[in-house]
Amino acid sequence: MTRRINLNADIAESWGAYSIGNDAELMTIIKSANVACGFHAGDANSMHRLCLLAKQEGVSVGVHPGFNDLWGFGRRRIQMKASDLEYMVAYQIGALQAMARYAGIPVTHLKAHGALNNMAAEDEEYALAIGRAIKTVDPSLIYVVLYGSKMQWAAETLGLRVAREGFVDRAYLDDGNLASRALSGTVLKDPEAARRHTLRMVLDGEVTTINGKTIKVEVDTLCVHGDEPTAVAVARSARTALEQAGVTVVPLTEMDL
Amino acid sequence: MTRRINLNADIAESWGAYSIGNDAELMTIIKSANVACGFHAGDANSMHRLCLLAKQEGVSVGVHPGFNDLWGFGRRRIQMKASDLEYMVAYQIGALQAMARYAGIPVTHLKAHGALNNMAAEDEEYALAIGRAIKTVDPSLIYVVLYGSKMQWAAETLGLRVAREGFVDRAYLDDGNLASRALSGTVLKDPEAARRHTLRMVLDGEVTTINGKTIKVEVDTLCVHGDEPTAVAVARSARTALEQAGVTVVPLTEMDL
Amino acid sequence: MTRRINLNADIAESWGAYSIGNDAELMTIIKSANVACGFHAGDANSMHRLCLLAKQEGVSVGVHPGFNDLWGFGRRRIQMKASDLEYMVAYQIGALQAMARYAGIPVTHLKAHGALNNMAAEDEEYALAIGRAIKTVDPSLIYVVLYGSKMQWAAETLGLRVAREGFVDRAYLDDGNLASRALSGTVLKDPEAARRHTLRMVLDGEVTTINGKTIKVEVDTLCVHGDEPTAVAVARSARTALEQAGVTVVPLTEMDL
Amino acid sequence: MTRRINLNADIAESWGAYSIGNDAELMTIIKSANVACGFHAGDANSMHRLCLLAKQEGVSVGVHPGFNDLWGFGRRRIQMKASDLEYMVAYQIGALQAMARYAGIPVTHLKAHGALNNMAAEDEEYALAIGRAIKTVDPSLIYVVLYGSKMQWAAETLGLRVAREGFVDRAYLDDGNLASRALSGTVLKDPEAARRHTLRMVLDGEVTTINGKTIKVEVDTLCVHGDEPTAVAVARSARTALEQAGVTVVPLTEMDL
Repeated sequence: MTRRINLNADIAESWGAYSIGNDAELMTIIKSANVACGFHAGDANSMHRLCLLAKQEGVSVGVHPGFNDLWGFGRRRIQMKASDLEYMVAYQIGALQAMARYAGIPVTHLKAHGALNNMAAEDEEYALAIGRAIKTVDPSLIYVVLYGSKMQWAAETLGLRVAREGFVDRAYLDDGNLASRALSGTVLKDPEAARRHTLRMVLDGEVTTINGKTIKVEVDTLCVHGDEPTAVAVARSARTALEQAGVTVVPLTEMDL
Repeated sequence: MTRRINLNADIAESWGAYSIGNDAELMTIIKSANVACGFHAGDANSMHRLCLLAKQEGVSVGVHPGFNDLWGFGRRRIQMKASDLEYMVAYQIGALQAMARYAGIPVTHLKAHGALNNMAAEDEEYALAIGRAIKTVDPSLIYVVLYGSKMQWAAETLGLRVAREGFVDRAYLDDGNLASRALSGTVLKDPEAARRHTLRMVLDGEVTTINGKTIKVEVDTLCVHGDEPTAVAVARSARTALEQAGVTVVPLTEMDL
Repeated sequence: MTRRINLNADIAESWGAYSIGNDAELMTIIKSANVACGFHAGDANSMHRLCLLAKQEGVSVGVHPGFNDLWGFGRRRIQMKASDLEYMVAYQIGALQAMARYAGIPVTHLKAHGALNNMAAEDEEYALAIGRAIKTVDPSLIYVVLYGSKMQWAAETLGLRVAREGFVDRAYLDDGNLASRALSGTVLKDPEAARRHTLRMVLDGEVTTINGKTIKVEVDTLCVHGDEPTAVAVARSARTALEQAGVTVVPLTEMDL
Repeated sequence: MTRRINLNADIAESWGAYSIGNDAELMTIIKSANVACGFHAGDANSMHRLCLLAKQEGVSVGVHPGFNDLWGFGRRRIQMKASDLEYMVAYQIGALQAMARYAGIPVTHLKAHGALNNMAAEDEEYALAIGRAIKTVDPSLIYVVLYGSKMQWAAETLGLRVAREGFVDRAYLDDGNLASRALSGTVLKDPEAARRHTLRMVLDGEVTTINGKTIKVEVDTLCVHGDEPTAVAVARSARTALEQAGVTVVPLTEMDL
């Protein structure tokens, strides 16, 4: 039985005059923040602001690289060369490292965003490209990967530190990938449903897929989302349930990875 | 009399399928390269490519931050808050540091691009903003500044290492600022004119302005441009003239700054 | 005394997953909508959506061109060539005309956004550039201009239809230009203050500037903003006050211009 | 036997300070120009310039819409909702119509760019989305479609005017789609090879695929590309060969479609 777990969220997804999400409140619930780095969302200002907030809240920060697609919020699959993708990710790592210097905190992990995460979960070449960017720019970064995905394989192949991730508020396919957001009901907005799903994943190491099948899902970190109106309630419900079940919620850097 | 001088050029100004300049040839003439970082020009691919080339040619690399204005190639003045500008520059420093890891070389200096450089030369707040980005992200970076400008003042005020810059191929105003590119004749395209202008600056510490006035210009580094068809000939002419006059051309890191 | 007046607002300022403003509610108060066209804000989807809504609400639509600066929401001054500016505006006119075809409604006016509007109010060349874009692409468009500005002069010089604009929620300088948003108190957020300011402008043809001076301001159309949390209350207060004073609020196309 | 044929090329693919292709020379060889509209390439300036040039050379202009992906030059597949794609195309049609007003010429056709063209050739929903944008914004536009593709089906289904297209300089797959540029030898750079391929397509209505299979390809218009160094020689070779074979090269508007 898992005794410690990390809670992470995608954060700092503002852009200029635009903002999405409730960063300030989520930051009091999670222990690791995935910071958007200016490609699918986020700008230098939001990155700067979030790093200061993370220091204040004792939250560790990670790179949240995405496709160069602000219009699509990084949720549209873009076919690109693996080397283009690798350098695109490396660039975003460096950008966040610079902004983290303002808070005097280290960047501790990398979690890919949206379509980039989905594609890398399924595609060895993409999963390796992200891993190579980590290995070159900062091999101490923890590679956050969907449990059982190509990303997990790539991280292990490259000898990187790995955190296996599950999703508090997303439905699963039979192969362990996430069901598309485009399908109705695949984003859990009911705190109680999210609570049951979370406890089962953490305590029993399994989830029920959208087809009713039980699959194995072993996780080091749980993702909650920040861009749904229900996000804060869902995140809080998951955290409370975990603590009541005797599981300690810690930053990624305090997990044994 | 100056016995050593640095030659720098703005480099890596490609964007996706587009390219500008003759990087490969210029890199054999200069000793420090200012690498465009994805805002006014340059992308992760061109940054990666240039860092590998710099290592091969023994050229030191620096950040060449610009406004977020690809359409205007960073040559249009944009009025922004000083803090926006500072974080925008910090972001670009980090991005290049990441790409330089691919070549295993350090980033050694920062030279602002186009309108950003022109505005910071005249405006204390902007000059300080750039300096603060350097001081926070990597205080070892050399701040390349127009001789006698607000940037020089800001760099000295913040206690940063400074390289005073002159331009091989640009005409000067009486106040020491560069004459606008929009005026005819302000970009020197004739290698012989550039040669005389360069030697006078380095050997005598002075230039003749567009109004015929003689002003003092003391320089540690000389900039040649890469985006004019005549750039390579002009750069080569300047370098040859300097060497024939007994001046050694070295990377910025080998100057006493 | 003015018996009819137009109320306009800047609308459709969403971008991809991001949204700003309360378009649906504002559209029931105003009679003309200035539609962001993809440069400072707005995308093809928001333009499409707004045109359908405008048809439903009996609101006339106009082009709301801005600088190519999504990060700065078009509120930062960019120095560009007048011809670049002209074609940039022409492009945005065409884009909205296409989207208006989905609703089967005409595009009736043009109102520049943010820094573009401010610069053109003061600069003859910019004011003419916008006017020439109108004259070439669709000379039937009404050019919405700040009362007494260079834009009014340019529109008259080019023989275009003109609507002189006042601002329900912005403070004025002594020269008739708007006081910068960066100064505190220059955006009126109190519905009662906005009500008094509006009635005085429409009934008496004058406003009190931030220095306490009374200046003449004759208007055909009044602008309310959509991006402040107080925008809807301010707009509703202005409309109610006008109607109670016997002034009819109509689309721009029903004004005698 | 075909007695008349159209030659088209993708044109105006500059961006700000960047340029690609040899527009001026190609425009003397082709009879219809597909103008990049600011998404994958092209800006308001290049669109304006090209429309004036087209009038001077007697070339008809068409919309060349692409994905919103300047970095990828529109050559990367992006998965988006069909309605997003439709409005994105509609927007680009309007933008070009505005710029064509400067030359006083009509926009006569639409030819999708790169990955958008490839995806729409295979995908009914995308092919229909482009067709619907045409039908709404300007139903007189000729929809240029890959021969035998879903685009041809969509254009016929929607009752649009259709021009079936073949490629002078690209290799074909057995199913009639173009072989990917990523494969070596799929872009014909030898004028003599392009000449034979062209004549066979126009005179015999067939081509040999990369697997050596003969397939039927009936065409109204032939595309030459502008971004290869060999483009002008290839285009000229094709045109000369056609004229020597007694085929007249005309604008799309003079074809019986």
